[in-house]
Amino acid sequence: MTTTEREETKFKVVGTRPVRHDGIEKVTGQALFGADIDLNGLLHGKVLRSPHAHARVVSIDTSRAESLPGVHAVITGNDLSPAGPMQRGSGNRTDAILAQGKVLYKGHPVAAVAASSPHVAEEAITLIDVTYEPLPSVTNVEDAVAPGAPVLHEGWDDPSNGVPGSEIDSPNAATLERHVRGDLEAGFAEADLIVEREFRTKTVHQGYIEPQNGTASWSPEGRLTIWCSSQGHFGIRDAVADLLDIPVSQLKVVPMEIGGGFGGKLTAYLEPLAAVLSKKSLRPVKMTMTRAEVLEASGPTAGSHVKVKIGVTNEGRITAASGKFLFEGGAFGGGPVAPACAAIFAPYNLENVRIDGYDIVTNKPSTRAYRAPGAPIVAYAVESVMDEIAEMLDIDPMEFRLLNVAREGIRRADGVMNGRIGAAEVMEAVRSHPHYVAPRDGANHGRGVAMGFCRNNTGPACVIANVQDDGRISLIEGSVDIGGSRTVIAQQLAEVLGIPVEDVNPSIGDTDSIGFTSNTGGSGAAFKSGWAAHEAARDIITQLTERAALIWDVSPDQVRYEDGGVEHVSDTELRMSFREIAGMLPDSGGPVVGRANLNPVGQSGSYSANIVDVEVDPDTGKVDILRYTAFQDVGFAIHPSYVEGQIQGGTAQGVGWALNEEYFMGDDGAMLNTSLLDYRMPTTLDLPMIETVLVEVNNPGHPFGVRGVGEANISPPMAALANAIHDATGLRLRELPMNPQAVSKAIQEKAG
Amino acid sequence: MTTTEREETKFKVVGTRPVRHDGIEKVTGQALFGADIDLNGLLHGKVLRSPHAHARVVSIDTSRAESLPGVHAVITGNDLSPAGPMQRGSGNRTDAILAQGKVLYKGHPVAAVAASSPHVAEEAITLIDVTYEPLPSVTNVEDAVAPGAPVLHEGWDDPSNGVPGSEIDSPNAATLERHVRGDLEAGFAEADLIVEREFRTKTVHQGYIEPQNGTASWSPEGRLTIWCSSQGHFGIRDAVADLLDIPVSQLKVVPMEIGGGFGGKLTAYLEPLAAVLSKKSLRPVKMTMTRAEVLEASGPTAGSHVKVKIGVTNEGRITAASGKFLFEGGAFGGGPVAPACAAIFAPYNLENVRIDGYDIVTNKPSTRAYRAPGAPIVAYAVESVMDEIAEMLDIDPMEFRLLNVAREGIRRADGVMNGRIGAAEVMEAVRSHPHYVAPRDGANHGRGVAMGFCRNNTGPACVIANVQDDGRISLIEGSVDIGGSRTVIAQQLAEVLGIPVEDVNPSIGDTDSIGFTSNTGGSGAAFKSGWAAHEAARDIITQLTERAALIWDVSPDQVRYEDGGVEHVSDTELRMSFREIAGMLPDSGGPVVGRANLNPVGQSGSYSANIVDVEVDPDTGKVDILRYTAFQDVGFAIHPSYVEGQIQGGTAQGVGWALNEEYFMGDDGAMLNTSLLDYRMPTTLDLPMIETVLVEVNNPGHPFGVRGVGEANISPPMAALANAIHDATGLRLRELPMNPQAVSKAIQEKAG
Repeated sequence: MTTTEREETKFKVVGTRPVRHDGIEKVTGQALFGADIDLNGLLHGKVLRSPHAHARVVSIDTSRAESLPGVHAVITGNDLSPAGPMQRGSGNRTDAILAQGKVLYKGHPVAAVAASSPHVAEEAITLIDVTYEPLPSVTNVEDAVAPGAPVLHEGWDDPSNGVPGSEIDSPNAATLERHVRGDLEAGFAEADLIVEREFRTKTVHQGYIEPQNGTASWSPEGRLTIWCSSQGHFGIRDAVADLLDIPVSQLKVVPMEIGGGFGGKLTAYLEPLAAVLSKKSLRPVKMTMTRAEVLEASGPTAGSHVKVKIGVTNEGRITAASGKFLFEGGAFGGGPVAPACAAIFAPYNLENVRIDGYDIVTNKPSTRAYRAPGAPIVAYAVESVMDEIAEMLDIDPMEFRLLNVAREGIRRADGVMNGRIGAAEVMEAVRSHPHYVAPRDGANHGRGVAMGFCRNNTGPACVIANVQDDGRISLIEGSVDIGGSRTVIAQQLAEVLGIPVEDVNPSIGDTDSIGFTSNTGGSGAAFKSGWAAHEAARDIITQLTERAALIWDVSPDQVRYEDGGVEHVSDTELRMSFREIAGMLPDSGGPVVGRANLNPVGQSGSYSANIVDVEVDPDTGKVDILRYTAFQDVGFAIHPSYVEGQIQGGTAQGVGWALNEEYFMGDDGAMLNTSLLDYRMPTTLDLPMIETVLVEVNNPGHPFGVRGVGEANISPPMAALANAIHDATGLRLRELPMNPQAVSKAIQEKAG
Repeated sequence: MTTTEREETKFKVVGTRPVRHDGIEKVTGQALFGADIDLNGLLHGKVLRSPHAHARVVSIDTSRAESLPGVHAVITGNDLSPAGPMQRGSGNRTDAILAQGKVLYKGHPVAAVAASSPHVAEEAITLIDVTYEPLPSVTNVEDAVAPGAPVLHEGWDDPSNGVPGSEIDSPNAATLERHVRGDLEAGFAEADLIVEREFRTKTVHQGYIEPQNGTASWSPEGRLTIWCSSQGHFGIRDAVADLLDIPVSQLKVVPMEIGGGFGGKLTAYLEPLAAVLSKKSLRPVKMTMTRAEVLEASGPTAGSHVKVKIGVTNEGRITAASGKFLFEGGAFGGGPVAPACAAIFAPYNLENVRIDGYDIVTNKPSTRAYRAPGAPIVAYAVESVMDEIAEMLDIDPMEFRLLNVAREGIRRADGVMNGRIGAAEVMEAVRSHPHYVAPRDGANHGRGVAMGFCRNNTGPACVIANVQDDGRISLIEGSVDIGGSRTVIAQQLAEVLGIPVEDVNPSIGDTDSIGFTSNTGGSGAAFKSGWAAHEAARDIITQLTERAALIWDVSPDQVRYEDGGVEHVSDTELRMSFREIAGMLPDSGGPVVGRANLNPVGQSGSYSANIVDVEVDPDTGKVDILRYTAFQDVGFAIHPSYVEGQIQGGTAQGVGWALNEEYFMGDDGAMLNTSLLDYRMPTTLDLPMIETVLVEVNNPGHPFGVRGVGEANISPPMAALANAIHDATGLRLRELPMNPQAVSKAIQEKAG
């Protein structure tokens, strides 16, 4: 791994690579994840799920299950408030938690049981008698919008109504998001070359190691406590409160360690069930998913159908571009249309552009966020077309991109004004990297490049920083730590105070203990909670300088905080290190607690790029990755090792999506590969060491220049690999996954 | 119960009697106390205790215990750092946690075991072979200071050396605290009548229902977490860190609900043992005491020998008074000398006074705080003498006290300047109460009165108040709640904000989550943490007015907080209730979290008084209580029901101390009554309904006038009952307990 040369900075803690605070606990197996919780009198819950992809529920008889010894509670959709008719974009729906009248996908919860052991609970759900009336199902977007397709939700207007030129007219279309700028027709008329291509991608899953879990305890006075692994315990709290129709303050969510999320742990699946079972049984109830349940009934990302059309002059200037994509929303909708609209043409400066993004319901679990939601799908399409055009124009592919690069002060295709972005810097880093010009002369070898993007997010963030008497700080923050954020946030606090990061002990507060902090998503934790830590440190400094003035009996404006301590502005005798004054707090006016509650703006999108070398086996169609270099504009890397890890992780996931992963669906609407043996994610054996290049284009909207780094890295691999396969074989693969079967089939077709 | 008439106040929440926040959880058994904790892989610890009151430990062989299947760790004094020579007033000693070379009382820990179950642990300690060399022991103060008494700690100087007129010369004397004012000899010379009496009291226990407990988990990276029931988790943290020689920040103490403390749960007994066992076993370890262990090896209050001498004029003016008391400190000292010096003559204004208070070590567990530490003992002596003098002078006993009453601006005998105190108001409330003049003409009936006092304490206190979107507040505070303080603190927050107290959800933060807050002791929680809640509410108001200004686009100085909401100072259209603006916080700049970190001064002592009617059975000596009225200066009663409960509870404990409770010691230094069947605390059958009178003399040193109310109430019963027994029988009993055996013996002696 290399990083770009970092300019000499005045920083001592941010930008370094300290050992993570939670490292030893995690590698020794002592860290407590959601399923590790144990409580007195704990019951175990289990969900009965629909075996049908689409059916009416005629009747449910729970009496046999209820009479099984050891069963404490059985619930069905009748135990929740009626969901009412499905509205587009409606929020938390009780019928998504437990079916009401109709099941919409295989795995849709129909009933749940709490029993004295997981085994009794498993037996009990087999004793629930459900009569279904199966309905035809549909599990991909093209079938879902075809005339005569099964209709999931009755009574929807077509969202395309009144939108000129839209091509979809389907009762399964949930939403259409359109962005237009300039004059598309005039732009294409100006072009010397127009390339229009179609792409298809399959449903894929985030593939986190730790299955969903949730434990709930409903107290006799009506207070609810939930322990779970999530990407945002405040989000889980708000969703459960909404679903159960209780005030948010009646509910406390305690965050446990999380074993991976990638966007898939923002949704409450088991928590509301455990809560209702606990209310009914008056005992705490723990629930966990099996791997099959995770795959069949949590929220994967969308399968898709994408059309991209780009017009260029012979000199390589893009004159117009349009994109139309249909994203699977699953049973209740949720395709990542908006972030895909942001990402689709984000690396480029387009005068004439149109985007049509559709969310289409299908008989699958509802689509949920997956790392840079939607962006990899549209990048796959656009960056494949860009590669094809560069080849046609015989321009270096990165040179072609630089000719059209997006810059500060120019609007993105979705209308957002670019701030200080790093698109050009990333392209230039690719172009000047040794990998870009290294020889590639092996037989069946090929090289591909592609760009990627994620818009990133922010939100409210709170921290509390307790100064302990021994000069260390207990830092309570509200951002769940998935990727190392607790250390990165602690670094920002330590930097401001001029103390070692090892002297900060970070932990995540429950929803009662810390102020509302938005989800760890949109690569926002290091940005927003890091900023809050910065502010809390400033708050501590204010209090310490006042305290030092009190101790020294001087005016507060005569005291400043410098180099990790308080000092008199002129009397050099008067100086106390942070640790020294911390030791004096108890006897000089009491404790000092730093505090920050923010809702910071200024987050900024991140650009990424890949160079990948492959070897394609012409007999089997297997694609071996020979060399991989991943570039990303990372703002300012607070902890470069974590940033590199994020880039490597996102790249690996992108490779899996590109080459192997897919929901393999049977004709009956059932997923056929519901284990990690059959749902094929890349292992270390499938990947070389992924070289990372951190391009540090500081974000002026953050005190330390932070921008989100967790997501953009997943976007380039699909197109980069497709372009590399083209380079090796001459084939343009426009459907994912590009697995051995697909590649060998394409080779055979080309060979005739 | 009655309360004094409360003046019409502007308050809506403080001064009312809401249902306690933790009530339902507690009465339904769902609240989690220390022993309720369960953790994955939990081991159970057990302590091997000395069978001797005093002995040298010749050898300890743990090998048989270590080889018992299921035993994970065995520790002895060698596993702690050497304690070194015992110094007077030395703090946390490792040899108090595990004996080092010598055991100093029956029950002194010698070794500890962690095993897979409590049963295995119990078996294992029987397999530890200890060779003792027994030494003579001493278990009361008079024997301990007698010439030739067994010496507990070698090499001590006599603290009386150089103190003129001190009467004790003993190597078992730990400390002497002397206060002198005026000219004692001249004062007594001025007296028309001098009464000097001796009193003796036995060791008694706080008698909390929940035994001591502690669970510790030492993580592989060296971080220690402790769960326990205590009166101050920060105090436990600091003590354990000191004993184990680790920084306080390395250790987190999580407070569990506490089943009674009364001063006895300020000390770490099991927590450090569990911690070392956890470190050695790499597993969490839980330990709990049996009732016998609680009585033999936690910290009861001192047995004593007290001399009081008071001189008066014939008109009832006290000309001089002296008190000398010897308090048992137990094995390492700890008799409550200082608070007894504060209390002994606190109700009175004395120009010529001397106090000599000694702490004497004995072969018993170290003395620890018990409700108004030391005050009941000295009040027993002084108030008995006051009663005797009033009788001799034929002055009404309350009139006599009022003639000499302590007032604001006059120094207490221990040198502290009286602030706004309620001594006179309490005396006047007694004198004007119907009970005081009610007929008392039954055979063997008698009535007694007495005063009491507790100086009360304060200390640092922190609270965090998170405003939830639904307009409720999650209040995190640092004061352990023993007697209802979470509701009382919540009331003070709610009052300032003008919201219902039911909208506040109070809880106690762990030592990482909330800033340092001193122990719940000295009746300080409602004072200091209530004040912190008041300040946190002010902090919220500051933020809400700024936010309202932002939302309304007006200057912040145009916005005020009134009647539970923000409003524009002149535009009556602009007003939002607290709940309304809370709902707007997420979208208008983020969360609002109130914060306060204080070390408030201004706590003030509390005065108490009793009127008690008894019937003495001349045959059995049994004292039946016929009517009881307890008075107390309570500052401003935030929650009058709690205050009444405190008064009733303290009175009941005082009655037990007066009439029945004692450590009944065998000649071998062993306590003989180590169960609650034999250690006789009063039950509801022993007591009438105790009528309470709240005398509200507001404390000007607190925003709501709060003064500590938890302790002064335990001081008057011993003397009040002794005086009542005298009234019934003509007997002056000067030794506790005044149980049937003692009373009948005195009756027989009087009858000759």
